[in-house]
Amino acid sequence: MSRWEPNARERLERAALELFAEHGYDNTTVAGIAERAGLTKRTFFRYFTDKREVLFYGQELLVQLFARSIAVAPESATPLQAITAALEASEAAFQPERRGLAARRQEIVAANASLREREMFKRVILTDTMGDALRERGVPDPAASVAAELGALAFGMAFRRWLDAPGEPKYGELARETLEEIRATAAGLG
Amino acid sequence: MSRWEPNARERLERAALELFAEHGYDNTTVAGIAERAGLTKRTFFRYFTDKREVLFYGQELLVQLFARSIAVAPESATPLQAITAALEASEAAFQPERRGLAARRQEIVAANASLREREMFKRVILTDTMGDALRERGVPDPAASVAAELGALAFGMAFRRWLDAPGEPKYGELARETLEEIRATAAGLG
Repeated sequence: MSRWEPNARERLERAALELFAEHGYDNTTVAGIAERAGLTKRTFFRYFTDKREVLFYGQELLVQLFARSIAVAPESATPLQAITAALEASEAAFQPERRGLAARRQEIVAANASLREREMFKRVILTDTMGDALRERGVPDPAASVAAELGALAFGMAFRRWLDAPGEPKYGELARETLEEIRATAAGLG
Repeated sequence: MSRWEPNARERLERAALELFAEHGYDNTTVAGIAERAGLTKRTFFRYFTDKREVLFYGQELLVQLFARSIAVAPESATPLQAITAALEASEAAFQPERRGLAARRQEIVAANASLREREMFKRVILTDTMGDALRERGVPDPAASVAAELGALAFGMAFRRWLDAPGEPKYGELARETLEEIRATAAGLG
């Protein structure tokens, strides 16, 4: 077997999601995932530290993407414009061909209490990342925290809309519209 | 019984916080907590299911208090008025004589990754509780979610202000002012 397997990460991810769905998360092993993907355990560990990481590596990438997008937004951008840029940049992680995998992943996480707890934890990390990136730009509190919370809310809502929308919805567009809707809602809460 | 006479729950809580601070959370046992409090293990288990619960039972109570306060707010109350009522009602949990215990608790939670994760999880539960209670009142989404997120943010900020403020700050007042500040900030994010 060659050292470099094409699409190894995605093959492992698909295999893991299949096995989690068929036998349950707890009953699935790394060896089983590698076997289903036609790869070795060693290859698995080149991409993921453990089976849980297959479900959460995408969130790590998002955290980095959000931090960078907010940092490099134009100086003149308002806090919500910087967050809009971050949400739009995250479209890279939400291409149409990822929808099936993302939906399957949600079902697996929803079925397991400790995975759900992990998911919430990652969401808090994502929110804090946005808040910190805004503070780095000189946005004071509570504006940085408020913008980050609204951004996190928009992110989650846009994700569910992306999963549920018919056709091939563009994640970036959905996210921008959702954040604007949330901004207007917050402004109208009077 | 005079209001100054310490009850068993508070004696156990004080003993646990002392031991967590002295020997670390992981090195403290239920037997040790009961002994320090001059009570039996059996009495401990009448109040708490385990040592972790000593740190988190207050959050369970808050969840119930928030749900109830929002449910019974006047029909005419806006979403943020209902949340203001919930925050004000939570003053019962933040009396001046609780400040020292609360500050010590924060230090212990901050020093332990799994306790921090638990704390974040409970915060998510609190946010979801507020959102669900608003939906029960007929508040549509995203208004219910936005109001709940702003409420959770105000709750956390008001708590930190209550810990840091000199004198004997009234939690309910701080919370109301903080939520109003957050509302105005959100409205101005445009």
